[in-house]
Amino acid sequence: MQRVVEGYTSGEVPDYQMSALLMAIFIRGMSYEETLALTEAMAGSGGRYSFPHCVDKHSTGGVGDKISLTSLPLAAACGAPVAKLAGRGLGTTGGTVDKLESIPGFSCHLSEERFEKQVEEVGLAIMEAGDLAPADKAIYALRDTTGTVDSLPLVGSSIVSKKAATGAGHLLYDVKSGSGAFMKTPEEARELADLLVRLSKSFGIDASALVTGMDEPLGLAVGNALEVRESVSFLRGETSPADLSEMARTVAARLLELKGIPDPESAVEDAISSGAAHEKFSEFVVAQGGDPEALENLPVSDEVREISAPRAGHIARFSALGVGSAALLLGAGREKKGDEVDPGAGVEVFVKIGDEVEKGQPVARLHGERKAQRAGELVLEALEISGTPIERPPAILGSL
Amino acid sequence: MQRVVEGYTSGEVPDYQMSALLMAIFIRGMSYEETLALTEAMAGSGGRYSFPHCVDKHSTGGVGDKISLTSLPLAAACGAPVAKLAGRGLGTTGGTVDKLESIPGFSCHLSEERFEKQVEEVGLAIMEAGDLAPADKAIYALRDTTGTVDSLPLVGSSIVSKKAATGAGHLLYDVKSGSGAFMKTPEEARELADLLVRLSKSFGIDASALVTGMDEPLGLAVGNALEVRESVSFLRGETSPADLSEMARTVAARLLELKGIPDPESAVEDAISSGAAHEKFSEFVVAQGGDPEALENLPVSDEVREISAPRAGHIARFSALGVGSAALLLGAGREKKGDEVDPGAGVEVFVKIGDEVEKGQPVARLHGERKAQRAGELVLEALEISGTPIERPPAILGSL
Repeated sequence: MQRVVEGYTSGEVPDYQMSALLMAIFIRGMSYEETLALTEAMAGSGGRYSFPHCVDKHSTGGVGDKISLTSLPLAAACGAPVAKLAGRGLGTTGGTVDKLESIPGFSCHLSEERFEKQVEEVGLAIMEAGDLAPADKAIYALRDTTGTVDSLPLVGSSIVSKKAATGAGHLLYDVKSGSGAFMKTPEEARELADLLVRLSKSFGIDASALVTGMDEPLGLAVGNALEVRESVSFLRGETSPADLSEMARTVAARLLELKGIPDPESAVEDAISSGAAHEKFSEFVVAQGGDPEALENLPVSDEVREISAPRAGHIARFSALGVGSAALLLGAGREKKGDEVDPGAGVEVFVKIGDEVEKGQPVARLHGERKAQRAGELVLEALEISGTPIERPPAILGSL
Repeated sequence: MQRVVEGYTSGEVPDYQMSALLMAIFIRGMSYEETLALTEAMAGSGGRYSFPHCVDKHSTGGVGDKISLTSLPLAAACGAPVAKLAGRGLGTTGGTVDKLESIPGFSCHLSEERFEKQVEEVGLAIMEAGDLAPADKAIYALRDTTGTVDSLPLVGSSIVSKKAATGAGHLLYDVKSGSGAFMKTPEEARELADLLVRLSKSFGIDASALVTGMDEPLGLAVGNALEVRESVSFLRGETSPADLSEMARTVAARLLELKGIPDPESAVEDAISSGAAHEKFSEFVVAQGGDPEALENLPVSDEVREISAPRAGHIARFSALGVGSAALLLGAGREKKGDEVDPGAGVEVFVKIGDEVEKGQPVARLHGERKAQRAGELVLEALEISGTPIERPPAILGSL
């Protein structure tokens, strides 16, 4: 496997042989040993970092997912240093780097030296790293054009190869499950979570995982500056959406647990109520060039449009994919590589599954001037209002 | 499927997508309808001919296979016109075109006009056609480098796409089975035969098939001029190896049957005993520029080396693959595309499975000067002599 991946990266193994191998793996699967070998080969194909004393988290991706922005400053404030190497997002909303760079002045382009120094001094640094597992990147591009994306061993090895290259010693995976996630059922999500943890442990990483829901957006804000604003509000201890509040706390506590910090839940509560979490976030923003004043009043697009409930009832569905697509149209994400993101664009939802609404009550606000008409239609299509009460779904579906 | 094959031929569908599709087919198989669609798309990718009144045969390939050289003149002599479009061989021994071109002056490079005229006037013409099913050629090259050759629907569609493009109205498939064939067991061979006949019928071709053995070489001669010599001898009515004699007669009779000619077996016997079969062959050779004098004394390499039985006993095995590899080393075939064939090179075997031999009795004669030492070793390795009597295997294993 090492030789195939090296040969593919160097150009000796042509695309057509690699794609035939990927299709064989897609259909027949791979043994754990083969999956590990592929992961190792991809992890070793580019730059490798080592932060054995640091914690990190990885989400398989969701709409409105601001758990890195919230749980990591929280963990750092409690004494678990965070060294996060991140990529730029492609899809419905930006990645963590895009979200942070909606803060005026903030940059993830750090030198390695500065990154290490900041990890040591602030206890939290997030750097954009371009050359993590380049073989994974090349193989992913091939999978994308040959119908071989949806394969557990290929998904698992792709994720872990990048995380192993970033080198954090303690790692929590947040595997999303639901209509807005890659894994549609909790069972599939748990299977992936198992594989991620097992592969990570084979790399000597102290790993565990949560399975969390992704049917509706996480929290209320979807879009780069909107999500930072919601995160800051949470870190300040202000009233926050229940799912965001529970997940950010749980992820932070699990990171502390991995790091061996005693009584993680209390530590997390203290860090929020004392203001230490918010302070850590500000310190981190300043360290990476961000304007702490701007942070308090982030520029959000004032081209707004409100969407109202077409009838009274109970929210049965508010599709994460639909809201995410609307945010993308408004400019919050990239339809294709190289597209410019509008940091102030996005969607705020005002209702969550299970909420009761009156006819005409505002359910969402669109921010942004691009394709607002179509975005509004998508938000309405994403919404389903039922005549009978709906139970609020749990945010966390399982853990291992 | 049509669009995929057209896209692949035009370069719009890249190799890496085609190879992923081929691997999916290799592992999962294809329905009959999908196989037919692929066959139709490949058949239509290049030149197409139409000879609805003509008969033709196709062999899946074997060592010493001279059934086209013998059965086709025989069928033509009995009134079944033959229009054969052939390719050049790659592998242990040459293809039919190579064998015929070992006759001084003989050429398979005919214009379409001349080909048609010869079919009408002589009742037998064999032309080399370069542009038959080019999509099949391109796809085969990709299969060869991605481990996807050994797939029943891909093998079947490859064969029938070429035969459908050649346009004969009546077609007999000779599907080889045994250690020297692509299909190792009679069951596998019958499965392929079934598919070939079914696909051909879907193209409106009146088709049937034989399953024949390919553990040892067919007849005694392996090599281009050597095989023509053995064929001429058979057509003259001289004593011939039992397997060659039975198979050439059976294939000719089956072709007459497909054409609806009454009492095919008697017609075949008459054509041999009256000299009509041999005369038809000579007429055909002259029509394509061959020297009829030379035909009686074909140039065979006089660099010879005899191989003797290392001990007394009964021939249990005389591997077709081993003898074929020896003939290839001696120059009878092409190790790679573009290699020059030595028409006079090859191997004559003197014994067949079931024969009894004395120690030191000659079992084979090598003709040719290239790599004769190694060729001799291969022939000895191909031979297995048993202490107990061995039954002669049947030449024809089944028919449909």
